[in-house]
Amino acid sequence: MRRGPLSSPGNQTVADAGERAIIAAIRRRLPAAPAWLAVGIGDDAAVVQPERGALEILTTDASIEGVHFNRRFSAPCDIGWKALAVNVSDVAAMGGAPRLALLSLALPADFPVADLDALLDGFIDMAREARVTLAGGNIARSPGPLMIDVTVTGTARPRRVLTRGGGRPGDALYVSGAVGAALAGLEWLRRSDRSPEVAASNTRLPEDAGLAECVRRYRRPTPRSRLGALLGRNRAANACMDLSDGLADAVDQMADASGTGAAIDAQTLPIPAAARRLFEDMGRDSIAAAVMGGDDYELLIAVPKRARGRFATVQRQTRGIPLTRIGELTLGPGTRLLRDGNVEPLPAGFVHF
Amino acid sequence: MRRGPLSSPGNQTVADAGERAIIAAIRRRLPAAPAWLAVGIGDDAAVVQPERGALEILTTDASIEGVHFNRRFSAPCDIGWKALAVNVSDVAAMGGAPRLALLSLALPADFPVADLDALLDGFIDMAREARVTLAGGNIARSPGPLMIDVTVTGTARPRRVLTRGGGRPGDALYVSGAVGAALAGLEWLRRSDRSPEVAASNTRLPEDAGLAECVRRYRRPTPRSRLGALLGRNRAANACMDLSDGLADAVDQMADASGTGAAIDAQTLPIPAAARRLFEDMGRDSIAAAVMGGDDYELLIAVPKRARGRFATVQRQTRGIPLTRIGELTLGPGTRLLRDGNVEPLPAGFVHF
Repeated sequence: MRRGPLSSPGNQTVADAGERAIIAAIRRRLPAAPAWLAVGIGDDAAVVQPERGALEILTTDASIEGVHFNRRFSAPCDIGWKALAVNVSDVAAMGGAPRLALLSLALPADFPVADLDALLDGFIDMAREARVTLAGGNIARSPGPLMIDVTVTGTARPRRVLTRGGGRPGDALYVSGAVGAALAGLEWLRRSDRSPEVAASNTRLPEDAGLAECVRRYRRPTPRSRLGALLGRNRAANACMDLSDGLADAVDQMADASGTGAAIDAQTLPIPAAARRLFEDMGRDSIAAAVMGGDDYELLIAVPKRARGRFATVQRQTRGIPLTRIGELTLGPGTRLLRDGNVEPLPAGFVHF
Repeated sequence: MRRGPLSSPGNQTVADAGERAIIAAIRRRLPAAPAWLAVGIGDDAAVVQPERGALEILTTDASIEGVHFNRRFSAPCDIGWKALAVNVSDVAAMGGAPRLALLSLALPADFPVADLDALLDGFIDMAREARVTLAGGNIARSPGPLMIDVTVTGTARPRRVLTRGGGRPGDALYVSGAVGAALAGLEWLRRSDRSPEVAASNTRLPEDAGLAECVRRYRRPTPRSRLGALLGRNRAANACMDLSDGLADAVDQMADASGTGAAIDAQTLPIPAAARRLFEDMGRDSIAAAVMGGDDYELLIAVPKRARGRFATVQRQTRGIPLTRIGELTLGPGTRLLRDGNVEPLPAGFVHF
């Protein structure tokens, strides 16, 4: 793959480079188009041959500077990676396999082309990892923050789609990976940013290896693409949802859509030790912080008794991805947290407004 | 269709209303979902049954406050309408019929809910007019301008898609509707905005009926949805493209993608008389202004000799939409403007950066 960069001594900002040069730089980065892409980047729209016999999954998610990312905390390549990763995560949460992406960029006129090069590299790296084809998009000037709006489509077989609303009372709730890691990473970045003796750098990592992993997961999350597709294909779950707005929000939304309640056992939650320590250092309840923290692109999965065998098969096929049983969907309404023999309401999730 | 508004005496801004109330207000506005929409708004992603035997068309376009619209010039309902219309226009330009939309909103925290209600009404009105189903989207806070990113998918039969690159030397170039109308409308709005004696209003229209029509076309363009779909279905054109960035840009891009040149006859250009007068009042060359002005969501169409009969049939079927022959694609390279017996280079189109 050629990586012809936009950066050159002659043009320092995207306004210098111009729209056509930016589109050309994107096209140069792309691997050969798959046969199903009839018309790719450069026309009024992309044209695609649908996958025969499959349902189509469509999702869109925005990454906005000052809301979803901070250029002091994340390097441009991580921002590009994550803008696509959060959409791939949504397709995984439906039990689908991602297929193509559309990239809508709103760039401040003074955005450095070297940063745009790095952002595109990160986006294309995630696309290769998730086997997503960039098929089109849009480039506009932003009079305010940098914004990256991404649309991803995917496919799933009929009756293999995993909605939020398919859960039943008695389903076991599992979560992939770790919970609260991304928030811990973000809190460390915020703290370092306030500390005058630390040189600001959007690539710096803490010395503590566990905390460094949290910062990495905040900056460059790995969506559970293969896990989601396998859960769907094997009918190994009743419901599935990603944790973009935190575990508490996901449990609440799944229970609400499924017409059930939910009970979560605090003791079982896979919160990294480094994250616990950081939250406690901050004087916060580490369980509450971890379940309310957003940006963990893990999956919450409701597994009925009859699918346990199939779920175990998926667990073997995705060896290396931790899957932790954290509670169950219940008949009674409301979402509860069981902690030290007490029953508390599950804290509310992340709120955008 | 119920139109349950968000506005109430208790909540004045979107931050007061909250994300879930906004999503609920959108869902209340939607007509019954078509059978092909398996999962609509409210899950991680939308799920759709593809149309059997059809190719799929995908496009995304952003509308950004301060770049694509100004809240002093356009009412919220017009902003919502146009954000969708520009995407429908892209699907029409590919010869397709639009099918579904995803709506990604980035809202300033102080954005009034009454304005959001109106914006959604305008969006849904355009969706009904273009027979587009709103299937999902995303809502985020914007720390800067209001932004509306829309993705639209559509369908077309195989070998019925109209790209920019299918033109051949000798093809006649046609344009639908009028050229330069939207720019004239915008210039009138800019002028009124600077004039201290005129009360600012984003619904006010000029007294001159011709100019009022220009302002309407700027605020609330009608994409050539039926024309585009008929051109594709009847194989009535070799190439097609919309005029979002102006006629000069469209001619240049079509000629470039088709490997041809182009010659435009200035005398034939369908520039509204009111627009000509306004440009001349401003001391501008009215031909140059009209061909450089963006935001006319008309179609540029390359018609080969052998398709003249089919093109005439489409003309009859879309009676009421003016279709004007303005020139042709040429063997020699370059895009030229023939005016008063002289040959000039066609001015450059609208530049985003």
